[in-house]
Amino acid sequence: MKTATLNITCRDQKGLVAGATNFLYKNQGNIVALDQFVDEAARLFFMRLEWDLKGFKVSREKLPAAIEKLGRPKGYSHKWDLYFSDVRQRMAIFVSKQPHCLYDLLLRHQSGELDCDIPIIISNHTDCEPIARAFGVEYEYVPVEKATKARSEARELKLLEEYDIDFVVLARYMQILSPRFLARYRNRIINVHHSFLPAFMGAKAYNQAHERGVKIIGATSHFVTEDLDHGPIIRQAVANISHRDTVSDLITRGKDLERVVLAEAVRLYIEHRLFISKNRTVIL
Amino acid sequence: MKTATLNITCRDQKGLVAGATNFLYKNQGNIVALDQFVDEAARLFFMRLEWDLKGFKVSREKLPAAIEKLGRPKGYSHKWDLYFSDVRQRMAIFVSKQPHCLYDLLLRHQSGELDCDIPIIISNHTDCEPIARAFGVEYEYVPVEKATKARSEARELKLLEEYDIDFVVLARYMQILSPRFLARYRNRIINVHHSFLPAFMGAKAYNQAHERGVKIIGATSHFVTEDLDHGPIIRQAVANISHRDTVSDLITRGKDLERVVLAEAVRLYIEHRLFISKNRTVIL
Amino acid sequence: MKTATLNITCRDQKGLVAGATNFLYKNQGNIVALDQFVDEAARLFFMRLEWDLKGFKVSREKLPAAIEKLGRPKGYSHKWDLYFSDVRQRMAIFVSKQPHCLYDLLLRHQSGELDCDIPIIISNHTDCEPIARAFGVEYEYVPVEKATKARSEARELKLLEEYDIDFVVLARYMQILSPRFLARYRNRIINVHHSFLPAFMGAKAYNQAHERGVKIIGATSHFVTEDLDHGPIIRQAVANISHRDTVSDLITRGKDLERVVLAEAVRLYIEHRLFISKNRTVIL
Amino acid sequence: MKTATLNITCRDQKGLVAGATNFLYKNQGNIVALDQFVDEAARLFFMRLEWDLKGFKVSREKLPAAIEKLGRPKGYSHKWDLYFSDVRQRMAIFVSKQPHCLYDLLLRHQSGELDCDIPIIISNHTDCEPIARAFGVEYEYVPVEKATKARSEARELKLLEEYDIDFVVLARYMQILSPRFLARYRNRIINVHHSFLPAFMGAKAYNQAHERGVKIIGATSHFVTEDLDHGPIIRQAVANISHRDTVSDLITRGKDLERVVLAEAVRLYIEHRLFISKNRTVIL
Repeated sequence: MKTATLNITCRDQKGLVAGATNFLYKNQGNIVALDQFVDEAARLFFMRLEWDLKGFKVSREKLPAAIEKLGRPKGYSHKWDLYFSDVRQRMAIFVSKQPHCLYDLLLRHQSGELDCDIPIIISNHTDCEPIARAFGVEYEYVPVEKATKARSEARELKLLEEYDIDFVVLARYMQILSPRFLARYRNRIINVHHSFLPAFMGAKAYNQAHERGVKIIGATSHFVTEDLDHGPIIRQAVANISHRDTVSDLITRGKDLERVVLAEAVRLYIEHRLFISKNRTVIL
Repeated sequence: MKTATLNITCRDQKGLVAGATNFLYKNQGNIVALDQFVDEAARLFFMRLEWDLKGFKVSREKLPAAIEKLGRPKGYSHKWDLYFSDVRQRMAIFVSKQPHCLYDLLLRHQSGELDCDIPIIISNHTDCEPIARAFGVEYEYVPVEKATKARSEARELKLLEEYDIDFVVLARYMQILSPRFLARYRNRIINVHHSFLPAFMGAKAYNQAHERGVKIIGATSHFVTEDLDHGPIIRQAVANISHRDTVSDLITRGKDLERVVLAEAVRLYIEHRLFISKNRTVIL
Repeated sequence: MKTATLNITCRDQKGLVAGATNFLYKNQGNIVALDQFVDEAARLFFMRLEWDLKGFKVSREKLPAAIEKLGRPKGYSHKWDLYFSDVRQRMAIFVSKQPHCLYDLLLRHQSGELDCDIPIIISNHTDCEPIARAFGVEYEYVPVEKATKARSEARELKLLEEYDIDFVVLARYMQILSPRFLARYRNRIINVHHSFLPAFMGAKAYNQAHERGVKIIGATSHFVTEDLDHGPIIRQAVANISHRDTVSDLITRGKDLERVVLAEAVRLYIEHRLFISKNRTVIL
Repeated sequence: MKTATLNITCRDQKGLVAGATNFLYKNQGNIVALDQFVDEAARLFFMRLEWDLKGFKVSREKLPAAIEKLGRPKGYSHKWDLYFSDVRQRMAIFVSKQPHCLYDLLLRHQSGELDCDIPIIISNHTDCEPIARAFGVEYEYVPVEKATKARSEARELKLLEEYDIDFVVLARYMQILSPRFLARYRNRIINVHHSFLPAFMGAKAYNQAHERGVKIIGATSHFVTEDLDHGPIIRQAVANISHRDTVSDLITRGKDLERVVLAEAVRLYIEHRLFISKNRTVIL
């Protein structure tokens, strides 16, 4: 089934759902999924509307103008995005030395679990190159040094453009991206952090967790913002631990959590389910 | 905020959401919540639509007729229910000897967590009477013997009618209800079973679990049907156990699970979120 | 079965387990439970040893001296505690206005789940007095004002002494205890915090969690130390939430977590399973 | 650190721990880990004792005789196994077409998470051969047909012998092993089943789960016995699902559970932590 997905964000007011669903009904669009949410505090309305394109009377070319007009008569402006299920998102993976999240994404992609394209892997190390090769994905080694960081990022951005990348996944990438880079892919960069944020921000989260003596550890996937480890949280997972677990045990068990929260975030992203309200995600 | 909730179940077809949301929009109803689901296999459509009654142009009296008409022009028939947030559901609790679920429901009700009325508690034992008294709820002792079971049920049904009961919660009630009783409150009787169904149906579920050597135990809340422990599942919760846990440990830990899954089922019920599709619940 | 439990903490070295188990064997003590742990970093050894008193050849009176001697020949000093299963721990509960944890502890105690005595409840408010009365437990109202806090604590300590209290449980008690108070009951005061520590320390943890947009919430039981919310963690539990959950929803769901982690901490305490290694608990 | 691990199973009686720990103490063996359990119902005692070999006075060659003698004077017979940490267990993996568990085990092995040897992979299909090749592991294709099943198993057993295999892991292997095969590797064959057993035994467990409308799915690793899906359970894991999840969604999410419970079972096995008491595992 080929579908279109319309994501709308705007100030809350009456008639939003009626307007959109009427438009579909009049044009023979059968709704496949509809979810909406009103953030009362922010007074914002979010809607994800997916419909079957079979028999739908509006062509893909004319759809944007029709959607734009949808809002007009009521005098409200709305931010919207339109996606077609047969146009796959293009994901770039950034990785450093640890391969577990990279491997996991590639395997899920290979098994058909992640319905997107992965045209390129970028790394500041060469360690994971053989993995990329085994899965037939381009691997670009872009070393990052303090002095030449700006030049490295310029090269990365150029690669992302060349490969026509829609969104970036940091699969245990150990470099901090500059505000300039982030601005270019705002709300389109997903990271995995090795703790249940906001606990244990920064480096060596498992050491911090062991030191504090927590009885659960966690992992968090989130959008990346200028404020390190403070971006909107997408998924979190936890596991019970005990006093017997060493830091090394935590790292091992944590890898399973990291894999899962990152993969789930990617899946939600490519299904166009993620909205951002202030610093929180709305998942429709 | 006073709201109305319209729950619709019908054969899937185009225009259902547009029809209902248009009706609200034309009559100045602001949508508070909207969720819908299509069971592809059963070809059934489910929708829960809640709106603010403030400023809404259709009176409560005229609303049923208007909703009935909603479906007409399209030639489809729909099953619908209409609820008002200021009309509280009336719940009867059935209990035998074990008080933990009863206590839990009464405490949550007292704290305002469960927005319903509890006019009566019915039991085949007198053990829990002091608890009912402490919370100021009527307690009716209806002993159940094999020979006179029909008469006992007749009395129970009469009580439910007298107290104008909307739905029944079996809070560890150790008697099997007759088909006649079930028919009277179809899809309105909620039970808690002390295992993660369909594992360990029937009596002594924790003994069965211990015997089998499972590493997790669970509890399940479900609608009651003629087929014992086979009704539509509402909620399930689990806890990890180890070889060190005795049957008695399982019973103790299981109580926490039973409390939670039963309370959550009750909350979903009184918020009108539960639909039934064949033998499965749809939670909107 | 009547048992004795010997808890030993000392510098790690050879022969500790052999020494203790030999002593039991020679005196006809049948081991019921034995668990031990070595904190490699702290170079500390922890052991919990429980044995059947039936047929054991050493009298309760002579046991301490015998245990003391156990360590002698090897030249190491050990910290040990000895408990008898028929001497119940005496717990005082401190509570403010919110009754859910208090109710939970009293109900578990009533059902036989918590094998201890609860001679007194102390509160800086009168709200929970009827609950105490319903369960037949003494309730002392000790108001706490900034200016007279020292005097209030003096009264509390006097009450604890009068009632011969072994350990204190803060069941949502909203006052900070002074270092002097803490010193008197070092490692014997258990608190419940409404977040998965170290996230969201301090007040209004659910508001903080909502603001941050986490996808899981938690609760933590821990020993109280001078450093607020930094004491050794005993238990943690979490629950998944979504963007739809309001602060009020988090509070409601969090109560279930608070109840469970506090009750489990109390159970571990009265079973003498809790040891402290630096700022972490070892649970044997 | 090189260690020895002594696992003892015998009828419960006094002096067992003292005997073993004394023996270590007298021979300068420093205990690294000690855990024991008494199954009251079965009247069986289980102990896992691990000690540092550095400075230990008994040679590896003389150790078995010394352990054998340990039991003598008391007149009890004990079943024991002795392992050395520098002698790695040799694991054979059986797989059919689905590669996710195979991949997971190979990746964990590669990353050092599973401290064993994997000399051979055996499959009734050729699909996974490239994976084996990528990881440098021998792959033997042994097709299984109804008529020639006995011959296939004979070949498999011969391979296991040739490769000196200690234990077998069925990583989604879709063939039923004969009693003769099982007898040869009693308590040394680990399987993963795609449900929280005992729910949904047999084939198509996710379809069964979807049909029943459960709100949680699970996976189980267990020892294989003649009684299909009834062997002693090692690990179980679960995940929440909703009415929106299709059978295909369950399969995808279930894979994550299968991977984890199987890997954890393998880890417990190679750390010699698994004992069997009747039909239950004791994990020390």
